[in-house]
Amino acid sequence: MARGKKIYEGKAKTLYEGPEPGTLIQYFKDDATAFNAEKKAVVDGKGVLNNRLSEFFMEGLNSIGVPNHFIKRLNMREQLIRQCEIVPLEVIVRNFAAGSMSKRLGIEEGTRLPRPIIEFSYKDDDLGDPLVPEEYIIAFGWASQQDMDDIVALALRVNDFMAGVMYGVGIKLIDFKIEIGRVWEGDFMRLIVADEISPDSCRLWDIESGQKLDKDVFRRDLGNLTDAYTEVARRLGVLPTNGPAAANSVIN
Amino acid sequence: MARGKKIYEGKAKTLYEGPEPGTLIQYFKDDATAFNAEKKAVVDGKGVLNNRLSEFFMEGLNSIGVPNHFIKRLNMREQLIRQCEIVPLEVIVRNFAAGSMSKRLGIEEGTRLPRPIIEFSYKDDDLGDPLVPEEYIIAFGWASQQDMDDIVALALRVNDFMAGVMYGVGIKLIDFKIEIGRVWEGDFMRLIVADEISPDSCRLWDIESGQKLDKDVFRRDLGNLTDAYTEVARRLGVLPTNGPAAANSVIN
Ligand SMILES: Nc1ncnc2c1ncn2[C@@H]1O[C@H](COP(=O)(O)OP(=O)(O)O)[C@@H](O)[C@H]1O
Ligand SMILES: Nc1ncnc2c1ncn2[C@@H]1O[C@H](COP(=O)(O)OP(=O)(O)O)[C@@H](O)[C@H]1O
Ligand SMILES: [Mg+2]
Ligand SMILES: [Mg+2]
Repeated sequence: MARGKKIYEGKAKTLYEGPEPGTLIQYFKDDATAFNAEKKAVVDGKGVLNNRLSEFFMEGLNSIGVPNHFIKRLNMREQLIRQCEIVPLEVIVRNFAAGSMSKRLGIEEGTRLPRPIIEFSYKDDDLGDPLVPEEYIIAFGWASQQDMDDIVALALRVNDFMAGVMYGVGIKLIDFKIEIGRVWEGDFMRLIVADEISPDSCRLWDIESGQKLDKDVFRRDLGNLTDAYTEVARRLGVLPTNGPAAANSVIN
Repeated sequence: MARGKKIYEGKAKTLYEGPEPGTLIQYFKDDATAFNAEKKAVVDGKGVLNNRLSEFFMEGLNSIGVPNHFIKRLNMREQLIRQCEIVPLEVIVRNFAAGSMSKRLGIEEGTRLPRPIIEFSYKDDDLGDPLVPEEYIIAFGWASQQDMDDIVALALRVNDFMAGVMYGVGIKLIDFKIEIGRVWEGDFMRLIVADEISPDSCRLWDIESGQKLDKDVFRRDLGNLTDAYTEVARRLGVLPTNGPAAANSVIN
């Protein structure tokens, strides 16, 4: 499929115009960044894995009626998506304390939360994606109260589904981040899940061993990131085997 | 753990008094019944598999905060549960048409429904568990409108989670049935998921082949029921392997 012109180059993905109006092609790069891009590396095969895994999770969400931007995978690194107007928020759902929440509140990582907690960061790299109360979001008009209610409902459904997907393969869903976009169907505006769902955007711990299978492996130098993501993909049957041939096909 | 006296013998399970007030021991039999017990058989190992699988699903639900009766598994065939007052309904959630819905409406089995559909049968073996509109339930006082709203919310969460669990291991969750019970915490009444969640109470189709991995194998004489349930357990890592040793441990 012929790519249109590049319209955005982000930290992990590049967006191109798609073949039809209202579509985009999302190209998954091998670039890994952390701490607002202070730490950077190229991780062979990460883009291929995330392209596949995001396809897998978005298709699963689609199968339970959670609307999202995924249309189809085009090749190892690209997928066709619905273009949307991104709500400038990172929507974070936490089941267990970890990362910034643990640091901010002094709660040990892995502590089970009394219930899933949803929080929002304002998406702005220059500001370091600051945490914002819902009041700010409404006051500054980034989203309406009705939008926020819909976003919370969507996020909780994604959480229940993704927790199930992971539980079935022996993984604990600690937390994850999604982005939400607006699309218009005639005059009717709908909110859909956009961006990506992958080990870049989730915290995933092996239930038995506690081993981290997500981007913290990179953030904290815990080992080989591709190996961790490959393990997630292998358990979900997203890669045919974990032999050398499959590992090779991941890189290409 | 010493069992108390038998308090109920059902078609698939027997209930005994538990060690503490407010607890029961649920014993999973190998008896399989269908069509309101017109068809009967003993299926070696079914009780052991359902005991394990119901434990696995209930623990998973517990991990996302969906309250349920499971306390702990005691042995191969028994689990300790919270005693509750069962709401006399079968709560059925359907994602794809199958079984009685397909027959009643002439919709081909496997047809994706426009959204998950929840329906209720009045739990009464003599009447053959008749489908009832929500109006009947309220009018006859089997549950209040508030209860029904809570039951629908619970059932949808179970659906999202179970759909995820199955999706992650290549299985389509066609439909399932749960039972709901009331427990009191002081003056406060809570609704919790009770009975069992297992291939006896779900329709599960392999995503690739469409093969049935649930009680329809028995209802429709499609093969060996234990093999089907073992396959589900194996994919979920509930049984260590699918070798002869594991198969053997299933029977005992
Ligand atoms: N369906 C979509 N329509 C429009 N923009 C999208 C869609 N999905 C994701 N995006 C945006 O594309 C970019 C993805 O690239 P990424 O490398 O993650 O960027 P960033 O460095 O800004 O996080 C993000 O800015 C994200 O908000
Ligand atoms: N936690 C519970 N407390 C009390 N009763 C329960 C609980 N869980 C399930 N039950 C009841 O126990 C019985 C389970 O046995 P089963 O063989 O399924 O019976 P049946 O033939 O009536 O379907 C059902 O009647 C079910 O409603
Ligand atoms: Mg991004
Ligand atoms: Mg029963």
